[in-house]
Amino acid sequence: MRLQLSTWPEVENYLKTSRGIIMPIGSTEQHGPNGLIGTDALCAEEIAWGVGAATGALVGPTIGVGMAVHHMEFPGTVTLRPSTLVLVIRDYVTALADHGFERFLFVNGHGGNIATVRAAFNEIYAELRAERGAEAPNLRCRVISWWESESVHALSRELFGVAEGSHATPSEVSVVQYTHPNHIKEAPLDPPIAPSGPFYDARDYRRRFPDGRIGSNPGLARPEHGKRLYDAAVASLAEKYQKFVHEE
Amino acid sequence: MRLQLSTWPEVENYLKTSRGIIMPIGSTEQHGPNGLIGTDALCAEEIAWGVGAATGALVGPTIGVGMAVHHMEFPGTVTLRPSTLVLVIRDYVTALADHGFERFLFVNGHGGNIATVRAAFNEIYAELRAERGAEAPNLRCRVISWWESESVHALSRELFGVAEGSHATPSEVSVVQYTHPNHIKEAPLDPPIAPSGPFYDARDYRRRFPDGRIGSNPGLARPEHGKRLYDAAVASLAEKYQKFVHEE
Amino acid sequence: MRLQLSTWPEVENYLKTSRGIIMPIGSTEQHGPNGLIGTDALCAEEIAWGVGAATGALVGPTIGVGMAVHHMEFPGTVTLRPSTLVLVIRDYVTALADHGFERFLFVNGHGGNIATVRAAFNEIYAELRAERGAEAPNLRCRVISWWESESVHALSRELFGVAEGSHATPSEVSVVQYTHPNHIKEAPLDPPIAPSGPFYDARDYRRRFPDGRIGSNPGLARPEHGKRLYDAAVASLAEKYQKFVHEE
Amino acid sequence: MRLQLSTWPEVENYLKTSRGIIMPIGSTEQHGPNGLIGTDALCAEEIAWGVGAATGALVGPTIGVGMAVHHMEFPGTVTLRPSTLVLVIRDYVTALADHGFERFLFVNGHGGNIATVRAAFNEIYAELRAERGAEAPNLRCRVISWWESESVHALSRELFGVAEGSHATPSEVSVVQYTHPNHIKEAPLDPPIAPSGPFYDARDYRRRFPDGRIGSNPGLARPEHGKRLYDAAVASLAEKYQKFVHEE
Amino acid sequence: MRLQLSTWPEVENYLKTSRGIIMPIGSTEQHGPNGLIGTDALCAEEIAWGVGAATGALVGPTIGVGMAVHHMEFPGTVTLRPSTLVLVIRDYVTALADHGFERFLFVNGHGGNIATVRAAFNEIYAELRAERGAEAPNLRCRVISWWESESVHALSRELFGVAEGSHATPSEVSVVQYTHPNHIKEAPLDPPIAPSGPFYDARDYRRRFPDGRIGSNPGLARPEHGKRLYDAAVASLAEKYQKFVHEE
Amino acid sequence: MRLQLSTWPEVENYLKTSRGIIMPIGSTEQHGPNGLIGTDALCAEEIAWGVGAATGALVGPTIGVGMAVHHMEFPGTVTLRPSTLVLVIRDYVTALADHGFERFLFVNGHGGNIATVRAAFNEIYAELRAERGAEAPNLRCRVISWWESESVHALSRELFGVAEGSHATPSEVSVVQYTHPNHIKEAPLDPPIAPSGPFYDARDYRRRFPDGRIGSNPGLARPEHGKRLYDAAVASLAEKYQKFVHEE
Repeated sequence: MRLQLSTWPEVENYLKTSRGIIMPIGSTEQHGPNGLIGTDALCAEEIAWGVGAATGALVGPTIGVGMAVHHMEFPGTVTLRPSTLVLVIRDYVTALADHGFERFLFVNGHGGNIATVRAAFNEIYAELRAERGAEAPNLRCRVISWWESESVHALSRELFGVAEGSHATPSEVSVVQYTHPNHIKEAPLDPPIAPSGPFYDARDYRRRFPDGRIGSNPGLARPEHGKRLYDAAVASLAEKYQKFVHEE
Repeated sequence: MRLQLSTWPEVENYLKTSRGIIMPIGSTEQHGPNGLIGTDALCAEEIAWGVGAATGALVGPTIGVGMAVHHMEFPGTVTLRPSTLVLVIRDYVTALADHGFERFLFVNGHGGNIATVRAAFNEIYAELRAERGAEAPNLRCRVISWWESESVHALSRELFGVAEGSHATPSEVSVVQYTHPNHIKEAPLDPPIAPSGPFYDARDYRRRFPDGRIGSNPGLARPEHGKRLYDAAVASLAEKYQKFVHEE
Repeated sequence: MRLQLSTWPEVENYLKTSRGIIMPIGSTEQHGPNGLIGTDALCAEEIAWGVGAATGALVGPTIGVGMAVHHMEFPGTVTLRPSTLVLVIRDYVTALADHGFERFLFVNGHGGNIATVRAAFNEIYAELRAERGAEAPNLRCRVISWWESESVHALSRELFGVAEGSHATPSEVSVVQYTHPNHIKEAPLDPPIAPSGPFYDARDYRRRFPDGRIGSNPGLARPEHGKRLYDAAVASLAEKYQKFVHEE
Repeated sequence: MRLQLSTWPEVENYLKTSRGIIMPIGSTEQHGPNGLIGTDALCAEEIAWGVGAATGALVGPTIGVGMAVHHMEFPGTVTLRPSTLVLVIRDYVTALADHGFERFLFVNGHGGNIATVRAAFNEIYAELRAERGAEAPNLRCRVISWWESESVHALSRELFGVAEGSHATPSEVSVVQYTHPNHIKEAPLDPPIAPSGPFYDARDYRRRFPDGRIGSNPGLARPEHGKRLYDAAVASLAEKYQKFVHEE
Repeated sequence: MRLQLSTWPEVENYLKTSRGIIMPIGSTEQHGPNGLIGTDALCAEEIAWGVGAATGALVGPTIGVGMAVHHMEFPGTVTLRPSTLVLVIRDYVTALADHGFERFLFVNGHGGNIATVRAAFNEIYAELRAERGAEAPNLRCRVISWWESESVHALSRELFGVAEGSHATPSEVSVVQYTHPNHIKEAPLDPPIAPSGPFYDARDYRRRFPDGRIGSNPGLARPEHGKRLYDAAVASLAEKYQKFVHEE
Repeated sequence: MRLQLSTWPEVENYLKTSRGIIMPIGSTEQHGPNGLIGTDALCAEEIAWGVGAATGALVGPTIGVGMAVHHMEFPGTVTLRPSTLVLVIRDYVTALADHGFERFLFVNGHGGNIATVRAAFNEIYAELRAERGAEAPNLRCRVISWWESESVHALSRELFGVAEGSHATPSEVSVVQYTHPNHIKEAPLDPPIAPSGPFYDARDYRRRFPDGRIGSNPGLARPEHGKRLYDAAVASLAEKYQKFVHEE
């Protein structure tokens, strides 16, 4: 059940039986020569919708632009400053909490978001405590990246081995090829497996990773791999969501 | 051409011939008993994509949650505070300006956004002037709501007359019925045409407009009306975009 | 009754019979070769005081510096960033609401303020809802520009026709000539009627409108015209204020 | 020369011979049973205008609402939060600095403003350094309260002795009686000299000083005393301004 | 009793008998050729600990970096912007108020902090009033610099006369020599007594005071003088703290 | 070499041979019945000083209060909101970068800080890019918690096995017993090993972990264990710092 495709009386009904909601959050950033700029947003959104379909959970509006400061040397990247992203998450969560939602599972598509998302959760807890004291609602916010499960990890390893890398991975590119088959791109990848390592700001990132990839060979991506990864991620997250909303 | 469905080298290429971009902005808010909560976001997004297809313009990521403070008494509404929305627009525009984009046409789906969007444009101009002085990029930002053209107005009047109203209108509901035919909702509307008038905060809004509609009868919405409205809006905006990017 | 010319016991008394207040808001920005930089602030203030005299309403402190980012290429212009103006309005309104005021009519002297003022109203509603929930006071905030009435429009048209223009208008210059007869300025205006059109940031504004005027010939301004415009504006606003404070 | 009563070409001319400006800052807060709520704003503004007349200096727009958090238990008080006032001063000063002004003398009418005004000056210096580095303009900001001179102190002591007190003083009430003779108020003062002492927040203030005065007997105020105080303050500040703008 | 050296059950016990706490605040800024960069932080911290030992009061965590914008032309200076320092103090005080602390005595080591600290107190009062209204806790916040007592002043005069100056004073250097005897520095001071006068931003400061000192000869500093000053400051502040916490 | 115990000429000298600095960051929060509230700050500070001694690196001022929102149900905890901590880190780093520092190694004592610290690094990169563009300094910021090394992990396991837990651990309590032997506390711990699990806001934390510990038995802490842990942490961090500052 997607919030944007529901009416308000339907949401009112939903709240009679559940206080949980799934919140997709991705990023709009370069994903190498053949990965879509929307890769992280599309993965998070599609998988979150899949979890919603599997569990009957409501899925909130996607946060499609995240924290991508380090990708800013590549045209097309859009980023929120961390301080802005904190406010966006604060506004989404407190608006929904105002209607009675209490458990927020953020399904994340971008590793670079995690720190800011966690900071945002504590900002929310602190602000509600300041404003409402003992009357503050009992919110529970959690973030899980779609690839964070043993089954998805195993599948990535099986499919791509060391060519998985850590940015513009064949796994995420495959998922988008599966969900958006009309937008599969071809591009030369040289070297086939990109360099790896740590990085600091955007200029440093581009200097180390000139075509945007880190450690990956997204030339291995295939829609049929994407389907398997998508299915594994949805199954794993559906189970985690159920536990989360029923947790004492 | 959608930013999220492009690669960074494609965007780099695009920038060789154009500095313009289309930015869809909507809202996630109640739209009466039979209107989808995502109505404003979906209209803005779909019409912006249509304009992109018609003109070859790049279409940026949708801002799907806007300024809906006054709808907060209805479950499911999500809103950014105006101050947050200003920062979001600032971050989107300055990130894209960093890549060389200079002309930003915001295609808007929600009347309640306009004031904050305009405030944001001036915030951006002021901040760039403070930070960069004479080196600041020459940005031009404009916002046009999809219904803001004589052709769309005429069509709404022809189709719905006084039942158009001003919130949860049959026009916007029709557009979404056309773009999302699997999500057409039925609901009793009593009275058929909702009351009208001004309003202040969210409680005042609900007191005056108990089912969320203002002055409208969205029971008249039909997908085929939606197609005509969509086509008229795309044609009108495509023409305005062309003028905007070629304006001296 | 002007707040700054009252004592606190007088305000305490006033609150026993009324919850309404008039808030003048203007701008401090270039008004062409012969218009005063304070034109918008002085118009708003004087007309607000006139409305206060006509209705017995309390008139709050003038916000004399508004949103004039686009006039910054002309010496003497002072502007608040939109984000600052939002906070200023938030602080004024919440301080007065703390004393029991509930209906705020902003009498505006500058078109460029309107978007930010409206954003501010929603910021206030959102913040009070977050902080106080159901205990939040029932505030009603409205902004009306002094020229926004059929009677004032008709008079401007009658007096100045197409030479009215939209910035540094003979109407606003006339009002200030009437209220500040010792500060009437003479300056050559070439061409007599300034160019018109849209604009973006401050540099773009100056490039298009080199002496600051838009579409106007303020050489036609006369104090006696100012008196008629002032009287029409006060009468119209007095009526609107009465309706506003007695509205259900 | 008042900024609001000048045209932009006049300001452009002024800048050819001077980089200095006088900035009046007051407060809008209770001043006991017979003091006007605008006392601090009116004193600062009138005296600043006097200094402008005496020296030929330009006088900027008055900041009429200052930091009056501690007076909020008395109806009619309006306050900016300190954080807002910092931004307001930042915006005024940086806008004027953009035009070439470099020396800002704030003529202050309210002791409670001083801390925040000083914090604002350092906020400005820090922000310009961050944004512009070695290119930052060489601004010099200073704040002087109108009563801060030996001549004014001596006169207050001579006229009112221990009845001067520290809030709602006969000196400031006298100045306003002189500048605004049609707004002289009568009110019983019991006890004639109000209690004195330190205070913390607004509730604490009202508990200690139930009618708003601290240590003063403003029943001694007279317009003719106000004239002498006004003259002394203007003379002293005019001299200080001259030194300030010519200082190496 | 130092907060950082206590356990939470010890603090819980403390709160059964006292609502008072001592908050050391200093600065991390150049102190001339032979003064430690931490001088202000170390003085405030050590003296606050002494007051805690003398009175049994709890001493909170030191704010070791303060408002030192004007010292930024000297390597090693670290500063918070005033706006950040306001938030830091807000967070410290509101966190402790949440546990039941109500009286906060800030023991200050840096004159440049005072304005911002006072602004912060009012920011706190305003914010609590906005968020909690009549339910807001009755906080009392006060700041006293360690040298602000007749006994300390007299001792400084006796020991150093006119060579005390106002920055990098022999008094503060002596206190740190006493508390940190292993970190006594030698450096030529030329001229022995530094120049004096007002200053504006950091560049102006360095131009006027090239080695960082203002009006002082810290070559006169001795650990044994430091002990006397420390003892006098602790005794004076201990007495003031007792009065403060027992004040009605 | 500690910044606070250095003079500015010493820092100027240091910068001739190194651009690196170590920044200790901890927290001031409950650490169970026998752990000091300052545990995280003291560990970070002492170990950072040790690393400074081992490598000759400069050690900046300690951030002693961190992100401890979730510990707020225990008296004595002090926290910054994440948004404040971002600004604090921004101010520290940009002040030091202004002097020429380019490599910042944050030695962290509190797991709860990490997300916010990382968000802060990206806030800094984004802000410098916005303000300075291609002129922005090439900063590299990294955070490492003192326990993050194989040698420290192995030692904790060897010494405490499963009783290490994750908050108020015997390892961190031991380190503080070693560095602060006069402040070793005794308290009954029931059960000896505290419960484990995830948590959300502060109330939820206290409900699950009533005495503040998570999964640990800090009754096993000993100063001699602390010495071994301290030595291992210093050695490991010294090596990492050397690599970090010499990294290309």
